[in-house]
Amino acid sequence: MAKIRAKTGNITVEEYVNTVKSFHGYAAPGVIIGGFMVNLAHQHLPDGILLDAISETEVCLPDAVQLLTPCTIGNGWLKVFNFGRFALTLYDKDTGDGIRVYIDTEKLEKWPEIKSWFFKLIPRKEQDAEKLLQQIIEAGAGICSYQKVKVDLAPLSKKHRAKLTVCPRCKESYPAADGAICRGCQGQAPYLK
Amino acid sequence: MAKIRAKTGNITVEEYVNTVKSFHGYAAPGVIIGGFMVNLAHQHLPDGILLDAISETEVCLPDAVQLLTPCTIGNGWLKVFNFGRFALTLYDKDTGDGIRVYIDTEKLEKWPEIKSWFFKLIPRKEQDAEKLLQQIIEAGAGICSYQKVKVDLAPLSKKHRAKLTVCPRCKESYPAADGAICRGCQGQAPYLK
Repeated sequence: MAKIRAKTGNITVEEYVNTVKSFHGYAAPGVIIGGFMVNLAHQHLPDGILLDAISETEVCLPDAVQLLTPCTIGNGWLKVFNFGRFALTLYDKDTGDGIRVYIDTEKLEKWPEIKSWFFKLIPRKEQDAEKLLQQIIEAGAGICSYQKVKVDLAPLSKKHRAKLTVCPRCKESYPAADGAICRGCQGQAPYLK
Repeated sequence: MAKIRAKTGNITVEEYVNTVKSFHGYAAPGVIIGGFMVNLAHQHLPDGILLDAISETEVCLPDAVQLLTPCTIGNGWLKVFNFGRFALTLYDKDTGDGIRVYIDTEKLEKWPEIKSWFFKLIPRKEQDAEKLLQQIIEAGAGICSYQKVKVDLAPLSKKHRAKLTVCPRCKESYPAADGAICRGCQGQAPYLK
């Protein structure tokens, strides 16, 4: 079986599934499919470029990108645009030239288990998880298509190092541009009083 | 030296630093500090509860949470609120009761390298990276404080499985509630025409 390109070197699909289990908690279908999607993008990109990544959904795909590329949420090389499209893009961070991979809904016709999972056609409890995983691994990138894209780098470019100050209310540091007190103390914190 | 609680079992600080290097790309000061912050939160939470997590910044801390807890961006158990506060919360997903850990700016006075890095007081090039990492490891959670919080679960509760449809323009699936065409085709995609 073909290998999947990971952060360093190639790994087997089985190794990838195990990595997903330990990082994501379980072998989520979306993260497994995401592995084949990242791999397809890698295959159509030149070697030796510095990659940035975009996920067009916050579900599952960010973890495939984080496990297989240098791009993570915390280092800022992966950005999530939550459009609800099951698609990801790897691109040259200098030029914006990249490969966008998406689920090709027409190609799903051949894979009934994947199709019913993807479109949520049956309740999750009734889904045959084993058969689904089997079809996902058999299909590989065969349910995906890709396109060349040019990412608009301007809105993504790293902000200048924001000037920090100490919030007079909570005494924590925050970007001075946020106002006289931090956004948390402005009432945006997700905590109950 | 004290150990750090990871996804499964405890690891040494050195093991954590190596994990950060391979996942995040380098031993970023913020992710190393984040490890001590997650550990401090763990120490004040009961065992055997299902955890969700919040990061109040998109910088560095999400990777510490993802490496040391079951919570990732892709599985939805980690949410990022980008307030620019260097703080994180681990909480019981059923009750919202949690521990919020933050950098205590007063405690930074004892650690000049960490303070100058944290407040960006000197250009990154002039920062002594080795001395900084040394101070971070020596300080551990000693630069942090924590507080009990109750997370407001209502706005965070999982949305019902959104009905999906196929976009007549791009032929990809998207949440039907987004409109007659997907948000990407509505002009929100980050790609140049």
